[in-house]
Amino acid sequence: MQREATNKITPWEVCDKIDYEKLVKEFGVTKIDKKLQDSLKGLHPILSRGVYFSHRDFDKWISNAEKGKKVSILTGRGPSAKLHIGHLIPYLAAKSLQDKFDCEVYIPISDDEKFFVKEGLKYEEAIKLSRDNILDLIALGFKPGKTFIFEDFVYTDIYRYAAKTAKRISYSTAKAVFGLKPENNVGWSFYPAMQAAHILFPQFHKGKHMTLVPVGIDQDPFIRVTRDIAEHSDFNFEKPAAIHAKFIPSLYGDAKMSCVDSLGLNVIFLDDDKKTVESKIKKYAFSGGKDTLQEHREKGGNPDIDISFQYLKMFFEPDDKKLQKIHDDYKSGKMLTSELKQILIQKVNDFLEEHQKKKKLAEKQIDKFILK
Amino acid sequence: MQREATNKITPWEVCDKIDYEKLVKEFGVTKIDKKLQDSLKGLHPILSRGVYFSHRDFDKWISNAEKGKKVSILTGRGPSAKLHIGHLIPYLAAKSLQDKFDCEVYIPISDDEKFFVKEGLKYEEAIKLSRDNILDLIALGFKPGKTFIFEDFVYTDIYRYAAKTAKRISYSTAKAVFGLKPENNVGWSFYPAMQAAHILFPQFHKGKHMTLVPVGIDQDPFIRVTRDIAEHSDFNFEKPAAIHAKFIPSLYGDAKMSCVDSLGLNVIFLDDDKKTVESKIKKYAFSGGKDTLQEHREKGGNPDIDISFQYLKMFFEPDDKKLQKIHDDYKSGKMLTSELKQILIQKVNDFLEEHQKKKKLAEKQIDKFILK
Repeated sequence: MQREATNKITPWEVCDKIDYEKLVKEFGVTKIDKKLQDSLKGLHPILSRGVYFSHRDFDKWISNAEKGKKVSILTGRGPSAKLHIGHLIPYLAAKSLQDKFDCEVYIPISDDEKFFVKEGLKYEEAIKLSRDNILDLIALGFKPGKTFIFEDFVYTDIYRYAAKTAKRISYSTAKAVFGLKPENNVGWSFYPAMQAAHILFPQFHKGKHMTLVPVGIDQDPFIRVTRDIAEHSDFNFEKPAAIHAKFIPSLYGDAKMSCVDSLGLNVIFLDDDKKTVESKIKKYAFSGGKDTLQEHREKGGNPDIDISFQYLKMFFEPDDKKLQKIHDDYKSGKMLTSELKQILIQKVNDFLEEHQKKKKLAEKQIDKFILK
Repeated sequence: MQREATNKITPWEVCDKIDYEKLVKEFGVTKIDKKLQDSLKGLHPILSRGVYFSHRDFDKWISNAEKGKKVSILTGRGPSAKLHIGHLIPYLAAKSLQDKFDCEVYIPISDDEKFFVKEGLKYEEAIKLSRDNILDLIALGFKPGKTFIFEDFVYTDIYRYAAKTAKRISYSTAKAVFGLKPENNVGWSFYPAMQAAHILFPQFHKGKHMTLVPVGIDQDPFIRVTRDIAEHSDFNFEKPAAIHAKFIPSLYGDAKMSCVDSLGLNVIFLDDDKKTVESKIKKYAFSGGKDTLQEHREKGGNPDIDISFQYLKMFFEPDDKKLQKIHDDYKSGKMLTSELKQILIQKVNDFLEEHQKKKKLAEKQIDKFILK
């Protein structure tokens, strides 16, 4: 199951337009077909509208969940200075599935990975980054008592589990799958084992059951390595399932949202104020509209490439009918780019106002979520 | 400072007769000269009689200790089924130096290393091995409150320190120094960082000071790697000092004592009973005596190759005058091999009787020593 990291999609370098059909083949994953997609109706738009394009055993996971078998969700976070909308994708998916199936959600915070990979990042800084991120995640509304957040540098018992997975991952596997280089530090060599321990953590913690891991396709190598060892007699676990999200473009429309530009103008941060949101969307959100008012009225806009429409579709307009109307009005030229943008600005600011309130409340809730 | 593991002396394979002069050159360490050796008078025979043959900065460590500067000693243990006399070498040295300088002693128990390196060793077994070893070490009489024992799988906070050292050790360094192979698991790749964290632990724990690490020369690569990173601005620590012990022969006189034969007949275990000790020494202790009584009386024995004499010299006869008399009597032929062996049997059994009593008492003391 080892593969050379010959294509561009390794976990540490992704910033380009992607041929998803090709990726499905290259990564040996399964496309989410119509039947599976249809079963996601009623969930958060991030799940119901095709952002997740491929999977491993997601059908089996859903089937287990629907039968009332124990299932869980695992979605980690490499802590960063602050979160933007794009970062929320797997958590919105996880929360929506938790709401539907009342299952446990596990969120490991890999302060260690950041520390190993970012040469200049000091240990104390890596620790600090985590806390703010954790508050943002709690603010999304995960269920206390069913949601477990842990940081590798705080919940150090994770080392016991990582040691167990480490014993079953050779350096050559780690190297081939993750593109490790000899000059990389040995923390980095070890991290694939830590990641596998994260993915298997729900089973270490609560016994054998199926865990779903929402990830970017670039993270699939972690899943594959973990699936390869899950059934080893050391563990006797279920292979984890996975769903793979498309790379969500930045406001500029040209790259993955995680490729934040130096001024942070191409993404909407969770702490952006109303004026900033308005300015960023007005100035930078790539438009599918025409160059002149007259031309737009005549020929209409292109919602498929319009970032404002895409953000409404993926994140902010759950009502299918309303979304369809926006789509049709924009496409026909009835709705102008400025009007479309205004809808998004309002939706984003409503969301952020609510989020920022909840984040303050999260300060008091944090102990209900954190494993120590 | 990297070197290819081209000679035979890597930490995981040592079982041969050794040219120490050559090793001093190869490893780039310093021979313990007469002046330094003379300063060890009055300490345990393991230190005062030349078992430790080379060092790094031991003179500086002693000088600091004598000036009343803070110093500490670190000597780890890879847990094993049970301890034998040969295992005690660094602990006897550490205890003797602790008695003299009233310094702290740190004993990390690397259950993780054993687990990574021994394919068949289960996690639960690795944990169990540690406890018995710890009781043996406490029984040696280390000072409570000044002696800290910790197991990597129990005191998992060590992962935080190991992460810090891991960031400063590249895989290529680890590979070159420790002879790692691509098929080795990533726990093994990470272990050099864990070992470095052990060696620097006294400084992580109590701030910058000089730590002495008594080791076999085969363990010196760990020291070297750790010395290379100790002064990095991430740490600003003192380079640790080291002393290197000769490989102590087994009863057979032909190999390092740690190369226990399958029946365990070539070593004296700490839980051997009196009969077993008597039988092992009588049957197996390599003799420097002559083939016949007459020849022995005429030509005398050779104490330099006689295991019983060597064990008395290194472990069991602290009185220089008594030892000299045994030496002279044996060399002259006045003392027979059977008489020499009887002296050793008595000494070993006295030691073990006392040790086994103390080990039982150690059960109640264990909490005073263990970091959790």
